[in-house]
Amino acid sequence: MPIRAIVFDAYGTLYDVQSVRGLALELCAEQGELVTQLWRLKQLEYSWLRGLMQAYEDFWSVTRAALDFSLISAGIEPAPRLCDALMEKYLRLDLYPEAAAALDALGGYQLAILSNGSPAMLAALVEAAGLSGRFADVISVDRVKSYKPDPACYALVEPALGVPTAETLFVSSNGFDIAGAKRFGFRVARIARMDGMPAPESAAIGPAELYRLLRTQPEQLGLGADWTVRRLTDLPALLAGQEPINPSAGAGSAPGR
Amino acid sequence: MPIRAIVFDAYGTLYDVQSVRGLALELCAEQGELVTQLWRLKQLEYSWLRGLMQAYEDFWSVTRAALDFSLISAGIEPAPRLCDALMEKYLRLDLYPEAAAALDALGGYQLAILSNGSPAMLAALVEAAGLSGRFADVISVDRVKSYKPDPACYALVEPALGVPTAETLFVSSNGFDIAGAKRFGFRVARIARMDGMPAPESAAIGPAELYRLLRTQPEQLGLGADWTVRRLTDLPALLAGQEPINPSAGAGSAPGR
Repeated sequence: MPIRAIVFDAYGTLYDVQSVRGLALELCAEQGELVTQLWRLKQLEYSWLRGLMQAYEDFWSVTRAALDFSLISAGIEPAPRLCDALMEKYLRLDLYPEAAAALDALGGYQLAILSNGSPAMLAALVEAAGLSGRFADVISVDRVKSYKPDPACYALVEPALGVPTAETLFVSSNGFDIAGAKRFGFRVARIARMDGMPAPESAAIGPAELYRLLRTQPEQLGLGADWTVRRLTDLPALLAGQEPINPSAGAGSAPGR
Repeated sequence: MPIRAIVFDAYGTLYDVQSVRGLALELCAEQGELVTQLWRLKQLEYSWLRGLMQAYEDFWSVTRAALDFSLISAGIEPAPRLCDALMEKYLRLDLYPEAAAALDALGGYQLAILSNGSPAMLAALVEAAGLSGRFADVISVDRVKSYKPDPACYALVEPALGVPTAETLFVSSNGFDIAGAKRFGFRVARIARMDGMPAPESAAIGPAELYRLLRTQPEQLGLGADWTVRRLTDLPALLAGQEPINPSAGAGSAPGR
């Protein structure tokens, strides 16, 4: 079955959620690294919990609550001025360096985003990165008031694009999202920027390494990606039928598997 | 409204999930601490994701998958003999030292467990700790094939005990569980064994401290406990209408609030 559409996750796949770190280090000094990692870890936890509890609040609210949690954990008062400055960075996260070139090279496909982000957050991100007009649709889970990997979120794609799920490639670097998309029936490519790093040598590892372990490795959910590539710019060759780059032995890698 | 029944979470509330650490240190040497913390962090992540994805597998399977993940992350082959030994410890986790005395003192109430654990896991835990016969029911989420904080799990309690939700006290040390129980309508007591520890001094913190920050603090979900106490043995005085011990300023603490 040929691929006719490509749907990208936003946070961590097209946009670097770690790009808040510079500002966090500036505003929170030596606690900046801890704040950065707890923020993202808790942001996703809260999205899953609100989805499972059926207590939806949009991703702006979830992201702010997670920021409050991370600041309090680091012993920092979550003052409005501090929180506003950090939250504002979430509206202009860095695009990964190769993302624009990859989107250019994939212009022959219908392209879309499916993201946990609220419509306003996604509009700001796409605008700030100069990507307006590249996507047939920028789909927010807000349309169904739940969060990935709830199947209701993935079900938004087919009617939005008019392309069958089985002919759509879903692209994500997030393990939970890969599992959810795979279970729903998409063909899935995992972007594995951090694969191949050695296991930590001792228990004395910091928050950044713990984040890497918890959230950038393949999950053990029995729902792995069809293909694993290192960068978004590896996708055109993959789709042209060439052998994909597979940095992680053992993760599903053979095309068409 | 008087309290007529008390429902306890099992893992982390009656039973110490950290009591796998000794065996993990023995079997995984200097990686034991990392394995211990990743195991519990990922175990809960997988339960939330399987609940939200509607892809239930029981907690034994989830716990084993999380163990595989944690061992691989630490650079250790998840060999069957190693995994079997660690999994077996999950069937005889240490009861918290004050738990039996607290259950004795609360014998005038209908008592139950509501847990993510599979029926077989819970039967083994209750048996190993000599608690058979203390509970009117030991309720596994397996009855609805989902995980806390899915409201379907909390809905199991009222029909099982024949006591209205509003007259039932739910007791948990897990932030996600407190939020789910509160949202469902229980009165909720938080067991806060770790409250009052100072924020970490630098970004160089290890897995145990990161676990404490991520999973033992109150969550910022707007669904806090009605009461916070430090130990299970504080519950009888709380229910007798005395002022509760409240180690965490700012967390909902006044009785009847």
